Amino acid sequence: MRISDLGEFGLIELVRQWTQSAEPETGLALQAQFRIAVPNGDDAAAITFPDGPITELYTTDTMVDGVHFTAATTPWRDLGWKAIASNISDVAAMGGDPAVALITLGLPPETLVSDIQELYLGMMDICGEFGAQIIGGDMVRSPVAFVTVALTGIATGTPIVRTAAEPGHLVAVTGPVGGSAGGLRQLIDGCANSSDSVLVLQHRRPYPHVAAGKTLVAAGVSSAMDVSDGLADDLGKLCSASGVGATIFAHRVPALPALRSAFPGNWLDLALYGGEDYVLLFTAPGDIMELALLALPEGAAVVGEITDGDKGVVTILDESGASVPPAGAGWDHFAD
Amino acid sequence: MRISDLGEFGLIELVRQWTQSAEPETGLALQAQFRIAVPNGDDAAAITFPDGPITELYTTDTMVDGVHFTAATTPWRDLGWKAIASNISDVAAMGGDPAVALITLGLPPETLVSDIQELYLGMMDICGEFGAQIIGGDMVRSPVAFVTVALTGIATGTPIVRTAAEPGHLVAVTGPVGGSAGGLRQLIDGCANSSDSVLVLQHRRPYPHVAAGKTLVAAGVSSAMDVSDGLADDLGKLCSASGVGATIFAHRVPALPALRSAFPGNWLDLALYGGEDYVLLFTAPGDIMELALLALPEGAAVVGEITDGDKGVVTILDESGASVPPAGAGWDHFAD
Repeated sequence: MRISDLGEFGLIELVRQWTQSAEPETGLALQAQFRIAVPNGDDAAAITFPDGPITELYTTDTMVDGVHFTAATTPWRDLGWKAIASNISDVAAMGGDPAVALITLGLPPETLVSDIQELYLGMMDICGEFGAQIIGGDMVRSPVAFVTVALTGIATGTPIVRTAAEPGHLVAVTGPVGGSAGGLRQLIDGCANSSDSVLVLQHRRPYPHVAAGKTLVAAGVSSAMDVSDGLADDLGKLCSASGVGATIFAHRVPALPALRSAFPGNWLDLALYGGEDYVLLFTAPGDIMELALLALPEGAAVVGEITDGDKGVVTILDESGASVPPAGAGWDHFAD
Repeated sequence: MRISDLGEFGLIELVRQWTQSAEPETGLALQAQFRIAVPNGDDAAAITFPDGPITELYTTDTMVDGVHFTAATTPWRDLGWKAIASNISDVAAMGGDPAVALITLGLPPETLVSDIQELYLGMMDICGEFGAQIIGGDMVRSPVAFVTVALTGIATGTPIVRTAAEPGHLVAVTGPVGGSAGGLRQLIDGCANSSDSVLVLQHRRPYPHVAAGKTLVAAGVSSAMDVSDGLADDLGKLCSASGVGATIFAHRVPALPALRSAFPGNWLDLALYGGEDYVLLFTAPGDIMELALLALPEGAAVVGEITDGDKGVVTILDESGASVPPAGAGWDHFAD
């Protein structure tokens, strides 16, 4: 069987089984020095130390030329920003701050040094913004350019996981969605003046919701993840991880006015199925949700509810309560 | 300028300058929670925590299909072992134990699931051997297969760095070198029965010198690195980092009898310039060296000395004291 037959998430599930079935035979003295508090499968893994108040969060994310970006839609400096932003967003989704990063670059030999400098400038832009530090990495020759970031974050509260959603919880996002997908669409269609469009800015310089993540911890929210593959798709993953279903009320999904006006006919599809929003998706009982929304900046909104429906199934309803047929699907790396 | 004009190590030096010039503007409260004890540029970066006895070691290493391995010379299961071995070796060179790993796979959609299972079996083999745990990762579509491992290790002593070699130190290795390069040569030449050759085993299943690394810490050795790009080349890097020169006494370089017998005419070239040995190279004053060699397993040997010669220049002398002309060069990723 080829991995394209299985799909990205089928393969990820297999890998979880392969790697969880084995316990280390040696090194137990070492293992006693830390505990895996959140295993593989969440936005980030989390480890804790016996006598310390700190939880460490580990995540990694990769962008491949021609798959996740192209020179036409993503200048090198923005690529640097985005490569780190997606990792910071994973840490934000657990309620943590980014701390230290390792950068791996796969590069064709003909790559321009000035482009790599731009890439690092973009990475330093976002590291400076969020107090993260690049402490190492690797550079290798590759026929296709790729950027892999491995990021370690620090949380002082209990990390928020994607496995704790329960029927009756409300579902909310920490900000508007669909902007990045709208910006990408404008770039591909060649109809945007890139220096003017707020949607293109959302696509090229997504701003991870680190402060919002900590607000969620403080409010007592126990279930969250970041929106990287599209709201509907990511909510489905959160529901699968929690063993629940969900309903999205389409008319309550927040979107930027610029998205609604640029895409009057299909802004909702972009908001539901577009990726790379890097807002946080979270669930909570009504009282905690109320607290959280009071503390979050404008733009956060309840978009649905958790149900005891089929595990991982997300139903989308319009204002009249009629089911909206899915117009797209989330990102599957190995789909044809 | 293209990166192939600059070379891998010229580019690495530029990246160090770009990333060291900026201090994070925010997040200072976070920075106060840890300190970067060993910055970018060593085998691994090291961070320490104010109240903890533990030093964390961070490293990452990548293997790209057609660049670092081919299906012909490296079966998937061995690729899994090697991808993690090179990272464990970096941690060993600092005197630490491996702890947790993130695995990133770039894969063409036509990749067989059974090959990926083999890859993970190889990774679990070595993780079980050294008490490491895979806690997360990322899988992405890519036209060329690659494996990136980001490994965090733990050290309880002071990490050994490559910047502390001093004139008058002796130079030693913790085991024989050249075996992996000999095995690769046999595989390429098609002259090895792969199940018989100890050299092929050295190439496919290199065993990182974790125990030796801790022995070096206990003996008080302050300068070390692992041999991944070839003994002569890596000693040059250690000398550059320490601002010193070195001499290698060619007749003292340890090599397996199998290497000497299979390559009677050029075993020394393979030992000096072959890569992927994953033994440790270290320097120490005579009294500490004596202690270290008593505590290390058989195979460790003094191979040279540190001099106040030109920074980073390694001179190789034969038994008569005559200079041996360089027959090869270390690995440069971006060289033509």
